Amino acid sequence: MDPSVAVLAGGVGAARFLAGLSRAVDPTRTTAIVNTADDTVLHGLTVCPDLDTVTYTLAGLSDDERGWGLSGETWRTLEALARFADVRPAGSTAGSTWFSLGDTDLATHLYRTARLAEGATLHAVTDEIRRAFGVAQRIVPMTNEPVRTIVTLADDSPVSPGADMSFQEWFVRHRHAPPVAKVAFVGADGAVPLALDHVASADVVVIAPSNPLVSIGPIRALSGVDAALAARRDTVVAVSPIVGGRALKGPAAEMMRRLGSEASVVGVARLYAGICSTLVIDSVDADLAPEVEAAGMACVVTDTVMSDADVALALALTTIGAVA
Amino acid sequence: MDPSVAVLAGGVGAARFLAGLSRAVDPTRTTAIVNTADDTVLHGLTVCPDLDTVTYTLAGLSDDERGWGLSGETWRTLEALARFADVRPAGSTAGSTWFSLGDTDLATHLYRTARLAEGATLHAVTDEIRRAFGVAQRIVPMTNEPVRTIVTLADDSPVSPGADMSFQEWFVRHRHAPPVAKVAFVGADGAVPLALDHVASADVVVIAPSNPLVSIGPIRALSGVDAALAARRDTVVAVSPIVGGRALKGPAAEMMRRLGSEASVVGVARLYAGICSTLVIDSVDADLAPEVEAAGMACVVTDTVMSDADVALALALTTIGAVA
Repeated sequence: MDPSVAVLAGGVGAARFLAGLSRAVDPTRTTAIVNTADDTVLHGLTVCPDLDTVTYTLAGLSDDERGWGLSGETWRTLEALARFADVRPAGSTAGSTWFSLGDTDLATHLYRTARLAEGATLHAVTDEIRRAFGVAQRIVPMTNEPVRTIVTLADDSPVSPGADMSFQEWFVRHRHAPPVAKVAFVGADGAVPLALDHVASADVVVIAPSNPLVSIGPIRALSGVDAALAARRDTVVAVSPIVGGRALKGPAAEMMRRLGSEASVVGVARLYAGICSTLVIDSVDADLAPEVEAAGMACVVTDTVMSDADVALALALTTIGAVA
Repeated sequence: MDPSVAVLAGGVGAARFLAGLSRAVDPTRTTAIVNTADDTVLHGLTVCPDLDTVTYTLAGLSDDERGWGLSGETWRTLEALARFADVRPAGSTAGSTWFSLGDTDLATHLYRTARLAEGATLHAVTDEIRRAFGVAQRIVPMTNEPVRTIVTLADDSPVSPGADMSFQEWFVRHRHAPPVAKVAFVGADGAVPLALDHVASADVVVIAPSNPLVSIGPIRALSGVDAALAARRDTVVAVSPIVGGRALKGPAAEMMRRLGSEASVVGVARLYAGICSTLVIDSVDADLAPEVEAAGMACVVTDTVMSDADVALALALTTIGAVA
C-alpha cells in the first residue's frame, strides 16, 4: 500500500507539490493541512486564498500563468464594483477592488460564506468544496477558528512605517513591497489545530515549499503542532522554498532577511531543524548541502523548480523516498 | 417651482412610473419611499430587489425585457455556483441558484453588504448606491430595520399547504404560483418608517402602480404611515396596478382575490379609500369609474400601461395634475 502522507501547505508552491504528489502516491491517503492565516473577509465574504489555491490546482483548474484563481476567469463583478469607489465615505473599504475576485471564483466564496452562516465549520465546508471540484486528496484547514496574520511594517517602510497591517492588504494591495519588522498570528494561541492525528500518525509528513514564516509559521504556531512534528522528526521532510537565495514566488527571501534568517537553504534548515530531519534543496544550491547538514538536517539535492508536472512528480517521489 | 412629490413604491411598475415622473417634474424634488419587505439574504449578501429595480430603472440601466436586473448582464458566478448543488448537505440552502444574481448586479449586493457590515444604515447605503448610478431622485428604503414579508400558503396549495414561506421563495422560486391564505410583515411593528416627514409635507403623495398588498402593504404597516396619509388625503393619489382585472406583472390580482378583495380597480379603490382621495385607472376600466367613486375616491381615466417612456411621462403628468 502507498504510504499515507500529511503535507503542511501554503499556497502556490504547496499546491504544485501536492499535484505532483497526487500522481506519486494514492491521493486518498494524502491529507493537506493548509494555512488559513491569510484568510480575509471581503465584501462580507469569507475568502481563503491558500485553501482555494490548493483546491483549484488539484482540480486542474488553476490559472498557472497568473498564479492564483481559476483559469478562463472573467471579472465582470469586480469591474462593476469600481462604480462605488467615488460614493463610499472616507474610512470605508466597501467596494474595494484591489483584491481581484473573479466571477467564477466568487461562487466559491458565496458558497463558503453561506455555509459558515448556516453554522458549518470551515473544515466541513472545505471538504464540500473539495468534493465539488472532484479532488481526491483530503484538504483540511489548519484550524476552524479564525487566525489572522498581522504584519508590522518596518520603520523604514515607505508605506505606514511602524503600522500593523492585515496580511492581504500588505501582500496584495501593497504587493508585499513594504519591509516587515514583525509578524504575528492573532488568534493562534487559543485555536485548536485540525488533523493533528494525521501529523502524528501519517507514514510521512512533508513541509511543502511554502513561505516558512507566513505560510508554515501559522500552522506551527498552533498548540501541539511543533511538538507532534518533533516527536516524529525522523520521518518529517521539508522542501526548501528558497532556491539560489530567492523565493520562486512571493516575499519569503526578503522577509527571512528582515526577520533575522539567512535567505538561503541554510536559513530554511535552521528554521526547520528542530521539527524535521531532512531538507530537499535544489541542484543550484548543491554546494550548500554541507552547511544544511551542519545545521542539523540531512540534505537531498534534486530539481525542485516545478516548471511542469513531471518535475513535480519526480520531486514528490524523491521527497517521500527521502524519509519513507 | 415644480411640486415636491413623495412616491410610495414597489418594484417594476413603480420604477417605470418614477422614470416618467423624472421627466415630468424636477427629479431632485421627488422622493421614492421603497418597500423593503421583499429583501432577503442570499449567500450572505443583503439583496433589496425593489430598491435595486427602482435605482437601475431610474439610471436607465434596467433590463426591460426581463423586467428586473441590469441590461447586458452575464451569469458566470451563478453558473459556477451550480457546482455546489451536489455537495451541500440536506437542509442547507447554500449555493442555491433559483434566485438569479447577475455578475454586475452582484457588485451592488457586495457593496451594500460591506457597508452594512461597517455599520452604515440601509438609508445611507441606498443613497450611496443611488449616487453611484447617477440617479437624481431621492430613493429611501421604507425603514432601516429588517421587515420581512411572510406568506402563509393556502390549504389547497400544491406546494407545502398551510406552510409559511419567505416572500422571495414564494415569488421567485415558486413563481408566485401557490395560492396564499395570509400575508404578514414580520418586524413591521417595531420598525421606524423613514421619510415620514416627506409623506406629511410633500406637495403631492403618489401611491405607485405596485401590488397593494405586498408592495404598498408593508409601507402602510409601518407605524404612522397610514395616519400621515389620511391626514392629507386630498393630495394623495394612487395609480391602479390592476388593469382590466389583471396585474400587468406579478401576482396582485390573484392575491387580491384570495385575500378577499375584488381584483379590479374597484377593489383597489376600497383598499386605498381611507388614505387617498383619487385613483388613476386605465381607459379599459372606464366603465368602472362610477364604482370607484362609489367606493369613496375621485377617479381619473387615462392610459396607465407604460409601454414606452412617453406614456409614462403622460401618466405622471396626469397623476400629479389630478391632485396638485
